Amino acid sequence: MKDELIRVGVIGVGYWGPNLVRTLSEMDGVEVARAADLRPGRREFIARRFPQVTTTAEINDVLHDESISAVFIATPPATHRDVAIAALDAGKHVFIEKPLATVVHEAEEIVASAKAKHLKVAVGHLFLYHPAVIKIRELLTTGELGDFFFLASTRCNPGPPQTKVDVLWDLAPHDVAIALHLVGETPVEVTARGARFTNAQFTETAYVNLGFPSGRMAQINVSWLTPNKTRNLQLVCSKKTVVYDDMEMVEKVRVFDAGQDNRVNSKESASGPLSYGPGSIVAPAIASTEPLRLECEDFVRSIRDNSEPVSNGQCGLEVVRVLDAASRSLYGRAAYVTGARP
Amino acid sequence: MKDELIRVGVIGVGYWGPNLVRTLSEMDGVEVARAADLRPGRREFIARRFPQVTTTAEINDVLHDESISAVFIATPPATHRDVAIAALDAGKHVFIEKPLATVVHEAEEIVASAKAKHLKVAVGHLFLYHPAVIKIRELLTTGELGDFFFLASTRCNPGPPQTKVDVLWDLAPHDVAIALHLVGETPVEVTARGARFTNAQFTETAYVNLGFPSGRMAQINVSWLTPNKTRNLQLVCSKKTVVYDDMEMVEKVRVFDAGQDNRVNSKESASGPLSYGPGSIVAPAIASTEPLRLECEDFVRSIRDNSEPVSNGQCGLEVVRVLDAASRSLYGRAAYVTGARP
Amino acid sequence: MKDELIRVGVIGVGYWGPNLVRTLSEMDGVEVARAADLRPGRREFIARRFPQVTTTAEINDVLHDESISAVFIATPPATHRDVAIAALDAGKHVFIEKPLATVVHEAEEIVASAKAKHLKVAVGHLFLYHPAVIKIRELLTTGELGDFFFLASTRCNPGPPQTKVDVLWDLAPHDVAIALHLVGETPVEVTARGARFTNAQFTETAYVNLGFPSGRMAQINVSWLTPNKTRNLQLVCSKKTVVYDDMEMVEKVRVFDAGQDNRVNSKESASGPLSYGPGSIVAPAIASTEPLRLECEDFVRSIRDNSEPVSNGQCGLEVVRVLDAASRSLYGRAAYVTGARP
Amino acid sequence: MKDELIRVGVIGVGYWGPNLVRTLSEMDGVEVARAADLRPGRREFIARRFPQVTTTAEINDVLHDESISAVFIATPPATHRDVAIAALDAGKHVFIEKPLATVVHEAEEIVASAKAKHLKVAVGHLFLYHPAVIKIRELLTTGELGDFFFLASTRCNPGPPQTKVDVLWDLAPHDVAIALHLVGETPVEVTARGARFTNAQFTETAYVNLGFPSGRMAQINVSWLTPNKTRNLQLVCSKKTVVYDDMEMVEKVRVFDAGQDNRVNSKESASGPLSYGPGSIVAPAIASTEPLRLECEDFVRSIRDNSEPVSNGQCGLEVVRVLDAASRSLYGRAAYVTGARP
Repeated sequence: MKDELIRVGVIGVGYWGPNLVRTLSEMDGVEVARAADLRPGRREFIARRFPQVTTTAEINDVLHDESISAVFIATPPATHRDVAIAALDAGKHVFIEKPLATVVHEAEEIVASAKAKHLKVAVGHLFLYHPAVIKIRELLTTGELGDFFFLASTRCNPGPPQTKVDVLWDLAPHDVAIALHLVGETPVEVTARGARFTNAQFTETAYVNLGFPSGRMAQINVSWLTPNKTRNLQLVCSKKTVVYDDMEMVEKVRVFDAGQDNRVNSKESASGPLSYGPGSIVAPAIASTEPLRLECEDFVRSIRDNSEPVSNGQCGLEVVRVLDAASRSLYGRAAYVTGARP
Repeated sequence: MKDELIRVGVIGVGYWGPNLVRTLSEMDGVEVARAADLRPGRREFIARRFPQVTTTAEINDVLHDESISAVFIATPPATHRDVAIAALDAGKHVFIEKPLATVVHEAEEIVASAKAKHLKVAVGHLFLYHPAVIKIRELLTTGELGDFFFLASTRCNPGPPQTKVDVLWDLAPHDVAIALHLVGETPVEVTARGARFTNAQFTETAYVNLGFPSGRMAQINVSWLTPNKTRNLQLVCSKKTVVYDDMEMVEKVRVFDAGQDNRVNSKESASGPLSYGPGSIVAPAIASTEPLRLECEDFVRSIRDNSEPVSNGQCGLEVVRVLDAASRSLYGRAAYVTGARP
Repeated sequence: MKDELIRVGVIGVGYWGPNLVRTLSEMDGVEVARAADLRPGRREFIARRFPQVTTTAEINDVLHDESISAVFIATPPATHRDVAIAALDAGKHVFIEKPLATVVHEAEEIVASAKAKHLKVAVGHLFLYHPAVIKIRELLTTGELGDFFFLASTRCNPGPPQTKVDVLWDLAPHDVAIALHLVGETPVEVTARGARFTNAQFTETAYVNLGFPSGRMAQINVSWLTPNKTRNLQLVCSKKTVVYDDMEMVEKVRVFDAGQDNRVNSKESASGPLSYGPGSIVAPAIASTEPLRLECEDFVRSIRDNSEPVSNGQCGLEVVRVLDAASRSLYGRAAYVTGARP
Repeated sequence: MKDELIRVGVIGVGYWGPNLVRTLSEMDGVEVARAADLRPGRREFIARRFPQVTTTAEINDVLHDESISAVFIATPPATHRDVAIAALDAGKHVFIEKPLATVVHEAEEIVASAKAKHLKVAVGHLFLYHPAVIKIRELLTTGELGDFFFLASTRCNPGPPQTKVDVLWDLAPHDVAIALHLVGETPVEVTARGARFTNAQFTETAYVNLGFPSGRMAQINVSWLTPNKTRNLQLVCSKKTVVYDDMEMVEKVRVFDAGQDNRVNSKESASGPLSYGPGSIVAPAIASTEPLRLECEDFVRSIRDNSEPVSNGQCGLEVVRVLDAASRSLYGRAAYVTGARP
């Protein structure tokens, strides 16, 4: 399969699917043969922009096309299991948008089926391919940052209007995937709190704390209720702290040295003012490569080379397990304030 | 007492106390008569800068000075109860740096003693006097923001080198006080997680979630382990979101309108690109008045007018109760990840 | 011509041309039929991304294609006159990247030829179509800003490596076009200073001051020598000041109210501290529409409706006249420092 | 004079003078004996804050006080010459706020008189003592930045309400002093443009270009008409660019590496996208020392050690010469736009 043209299909071209079509269309050795969506407007959108792609309302037009070897699934999360299993049954490699599934056993089923059929599964944990995250992982690996202590990630934006999942399953998959990827451990303890204010059914704001076996920690804040889009990741290590702010145009990643602190050696006899201040800050050059491009290339490479993509099925499954634990913790036990009557 | 000169003493002039001396020295109708500290270096620092202030190593020199009617206490938190009770017993009004105490019953004792003796207690919850917080409260009160939903506050800086309290009792008093002040309710449920990495004894990073009876929520992230000083408060309401970033020199408070979102009315026939973006953002003018000045003036006014300061003893007590609940929750129960072995 | 499909050609697909191809490909009612470039690599780049576009090394393949009614010219500036005149002679409407030409009489020739042949000329002054500039012009027109006083524009980025023009003709066309558009006058006086440091032939940094008949002023700073890309426009008016920073992701345009200034009414008897501070700041919502899309649509509309595009030939000619005056002033007379020997 | 207490007087305690009083009061070995101001309100302000300072309306009370060895002059610029000469005649060392004088021969007279009397003259070019400028100079000196090419400085804020000088003499002294200090040359050519819009008498906005003998350049933009306070200095060198933004709370100085640019080696066969992006950026730790403190210490040291202060009289004189040339150029000759009728 080394140098052959790979023909692919895209299922679901609503908000995100068209980006997959565009990116795949720009890649050498890949051809987007078909795109499926139930909504005529979305099919028309694709047909006009990408005249070379055949659109259809019928998913089986994609699955039964023998020339197609891989399928990209960007349908609502609750449908991932059924579409993915059908695609695997049809002998296609599958790329599934995050989250892999919304139930642990469905995620397990997809991973098991792919394994049994020797097909590839990749999950759309896009940020694992973001040059900023790649740079941070590199800084961690080289030891430049010292020991990893904890990370805190905040991700907010106006929620999707006609959603079928809560904010935990919509936004937090990104942060959980990043946390697992950077910490390199599986969390044992998850504590979550959440609230809904405008939506009777779905949690709109959630705070999730992950405790790892080594004592490391990750804190994830996600919300749909605020118009000020926030993408902020702080990674605190023994030597340095990294801040990755994706809303910055240039200095997306900044590495903070330990600051100056004349309180440290202050003695009883110290008669000057006591203060602390920042150390030097470095914003390393971050490649401008599009993460989606790297993600698609990694999946295609895994098919060609029979290798594992970075964001593979196992990775997607672990994210689902953490989200499942967070869901269970969300409205669970806590401490009560002295004298307050809950 | 209306127009008389008020003579005051300051006990503890380490990191923060000198600021109290300076501010009180600049106020009309107030005179800093004495400052006490056990450390000769700190006394020398005050003596040189404020030649009109008599320094002493002996706290009783302050408490037994009949001309002094109020005492400002900026000693380590664990000593607050003893110093405050001694000052109240000596008939002095007391201003106590935050937290009021480190144990609930000690805070209760201070409040009860002051009440019994008809003396004033103020607690140094400085941010209740910050023009940014005053502006935010005003926006909340006028209804411009709509219903309050939740707030999230992050406060990080390098930790004090020779600390006697953990980060929860050092930094979070600010955020808890702001939360109680803005929400106007007492939380019933507190969930906290924390970790220590470089210090065997004290928690250095903590995440605290407050649940209020109305369903509102406050999330507080505090840490001592990172050199990049962070002071970020986000207040999400039904109509608008407010972000208060104290590290901004000019636009400290920004009010975000609901954004634009063409996904909201997207129908099956929608054939254009779907996206969302920010609405307009307003940074209201914030007075440049120093919070510490307003705080000191409020306490002095409460003495002159026999009124209650905004940050009074009851307020300080409630903050201590919340911190106490957070401490109890810190290493408590959570949900466990499927298949992970804790 | 109202509803017919308009077929176009693109001449020059180096750095900028591919953006024209992509944008035009996404528009309804427009088809990019051919793209010409002398360099095989650039043709290959287009062929792979846009399989529906026929590429050629031969400009006449575009000009002699009867089905093509308009040509987009993105070749080096010095060639604009020859390519544009050839296209006009072939009966094509022309869209010419900025600057329209590098010599005044060549710009005049293009405008005159188009007029004689009743063909449209548009010039790629992209920023006239930027939603931020459109918003600023709207604020000016409604009187919200008060009287226009002056603007200052800074535009810096690493220079193009194998350039054939200096920084004045490469970057300043944007700023001059914005200035003429917002001021609504033609400048009478141009003062310029420039320098070259790494390039023996071309000015790499230039400062241009435009004086308008009404006394208004525009200051333009452009440079190729600095890696920190800068796109900053300040527009000062009697009531408010507008800052447009294109390197901001969200708050691209900010409108500053008059600040607070207690020095204004300070009397001899004023005994408080004197200071000034910012007033409120508003960042209006800016549409996220791509300027290039609006620019191409405006040109296509001018062909369909026989109207004038906003950035028409006359506009392009005036920009060339100002740049020509700036070039003449660049190394001209100035004042000399007392006692210094030039 | 090595270890003796130095007693000083401050003449003029309006907007800036009180800062001199406060800073000098905090210094060891210095005592502010007297402060003079014609306005009763300003004297009252000083008397209340600094009870140890004797205030007076009569300048001779300061000049005839034998115990006073140095005088700080913060009166309006036009009075500097008379006050300074009187102080020198009284045998006092003089520190004069910027600008040294508003006429070249007055500045020369002050410098000559001090020299003849073996007294020290320092000029309040505060930014020469700003830790950011000190850091930049250090980066220049070590060669880390490569060859100096040019600098551009923008300084805007609401103008002083009852001014007696124009913006050139009020704000630009800072930028001219910084430029001369960093370039280390005296400019030979000055080109300036200015305008007034709300004030019939004084220029409110000015653009000044300094040409140095080596071909280096400095561009200075100053304005009083905009509420958004701006303090931005860009220093472009062969290897790196430095940006000093004094309105940043933390990253005041940032050093930009050469960026990435794949256009540089692009050949005719290049078939990928062409782009450029930023290199790495470093914000070095900047000491938080107050510039005013360093400035006062430097002057006191020059008296004690009979050394020259960094911002000495010669330095102040050269700034006045450049401002004088700029004033002469301000409304002088320029190039005219083709076809425009001035």
